[in-house]
Amino acid sequence: MTALAVDVGGTKFAAAAVGADGEMLARCELPLRGASCPEDRLSEVIAEITGRVPAGRIEAVGVGSAGPLDLQAGTVSPVNIPGWRDFPLVGFLERLLPGRPVRLAGDAQCMALGEWWRGTARPRTMLGMVVSTGVGGGLVLDGTPYLGPTGNAGHIGHITVDPHGPACACGATGCTETFASGPGMVGWARDNGWTGEDAEALAAAAAGGDPLARRAFQRAADALATAILTTAALFDLDHVVIGGGVAAAGPILFDPLRQAVARDAGLGYLRRLRVEPTRLGRDAGLLGAAALVLPVPARRASCT
Amino acid sequence: MTALAVDVGGTKFAAAAVGADGEMLARCELPLRGASCPEDRLSEVIAEITGRVPAGRIEAVGVGSAGPLDLQAGTVSPVNIPGWRDFPLVGFLERLLPGRPVRLAGDAQCMALGEWWRGTARPRTMLGMVVSTGVGGGLVLDGTPYLGPTGNAGHIGHITVDPHGPACACGATGCTETFASGPGMVGWARDNGWTGEDAEALAAAAAGGDPLARRAFQRAADALATAILTTAALFDLDHVVIGGGVAAAGPILFDPLRQAVARDAGLGYLRRLRVEPTRLGRDAGLLGAAALVLPVPARRASCT
Repeated sequence: MTALAVDVGGTKFAAAAVGADGEMLARCELPLRGASCPEDRLSEVIAEITGRVPAGRIEAVGVGSAGPLDLQAGTVSPVNIPGWRDFPLVGFLERLLPGRPVRLAGDAQCMALGEWWRGTARPRTMLGMVVSTGVGGGLVLDGTPYLGPTGNAGHIGHITVDPHGPACACGATGCTETFASGPGMVGWARDNGWTGEDAEALAAAAAGGDPLARRAFQRAADALATAILTTAALFDLDHVVIGGGVAAAGPILFDPLRQAVARDAGLGYLRRLRVEPTRLGRDAGLLGAAALVLPVPARRASCT
Repeated sequence: MTALAVDVGGTKFAAAAVGADGEMLARCELPLRGASCPEDRLSEVIAEITGRVPAGRIEAVGVGSAGPLDLQAGTVSPVNIPGWRDFPLVGFLERLLPGRPVRLAGDAQCMALGEWWRGTARPRTMLGMVVSTGVGGGLVLDGTPYLGPTGNAGHIGHITVDPHGPACACGATGCTETFASGPGMVGWARDNGWTGEDAEALAAAAAGGDPLARRAFQRAADALATAILTTAALFDLDHVVIGGGVAAAGPILFDPLRQAVARDAGLGYLRRLRVEPTRLGRDAGLLGAAALVLPVPARRASCT
């Protein structure tokens, strides 16, 4: 069985044909910038795949999208695509590939499912996170993505980790994202005198020993540790996998993060938690989108 | 079908015979104080029920216990029962009522399931909370209690709602419980000059307009709102039901709590959340324990 996997990001669209064991038969990625309209770009990236894989082989479509989304309506409203508000993404794909079932989830939910399927030893309860321009998350419980009634479960970037923290664009205060997203970290560093440009430069400065840059990463690590331990306490988590541009900084983030998690874990069952970087990188989202419609082996043992 | 429901609290044991529609055929509650050992008291309270309901009618046993607990091992270690550390509660009940299946969950998890079954219009995703000497929680997802791999899911009392808050007995900092449990509220009020005795007196003072007592309830409400919205963001919640001694204060707690939830809800899908007091009161835990083993109608529609 072969699935068409689609990844709708805020700045790029990607698609792939994925076989039942996770093999990528074809893959294409195009930036959203320069397209006359997002729908055309999406059609274009999908046509690249259907042009390379016989159309008859594709039996189902899995799609991960930047949020917010409405699972019941099959619509998405990605923050960075102003032209799409309640855009009927599921219906659009059904018309593009008639006769194939289409299944939608959030982009971070797909990342989590992809990592669970092809990147880990398949823990019973897992959180996948994308720490990048924003902070997103998704849960996999006993091999099944937990999406929630509206499809918005796992929004770890918008939980309050410090009620005295900065105001967040979402309307709440002190969200994880205000401390640990690339723009959040860079904004704080620049407010405190750093003169670099972006999160990549901040990571390089921290790696070079710049004290202010290191403090920015410590601050992000502390916020991420609170968010992760909160999620672990509520879901009884075994495992966390983190990807995204900020996480690509490696030990500069993961060393203080693991220390903060160990320092702040109170109850005994939180101490088994493993915090790991992504093993699949940018493919995790596409693999997870495919896993929405492929016969992926779930653990079956129930968490309930 | 009739179940024996057992509720192991920190200061009292309760048991009931519960029919398939939630009718209580017999009910007994005894304080733990004065018993030579907890096992004897538990046998005593159960004998009260089996003496009143023909033994043959009881087909299964559901038990809710104060935590922590280990679901795989069937053991419990209630903080307030020092004599029980890794006590094999499931095995004890199996020997007491041979041939009946025994199912264990946390006390707040049982409260949540009981409220879902007999106290609400059965929302798809629900959090039940007990705000009392401690703060506990349990999740019901599509009619099924979500317990987690070790049985400790839903520990909302021990998530950090303010990293600058008081140290918590669990080892973490600024947990919900440090702000919103009875002892946490009374401790803060007394540190600030209040001279009353306990949470009941604090509620009476707040109801009478005492400014310091009202601040203690506002502080608890703010902490509970953060904890509730965090759980709502992660689980995509429809509904929260709150019971326990502190919640029994009524509008003194629920008015500022609902205002704080409305004020702090950022993302759109959080605004559908309903926050309600318990409708079942002290029976919720016993009904939920019974529901662990009775054929309770789950919604069946999946959240995944």
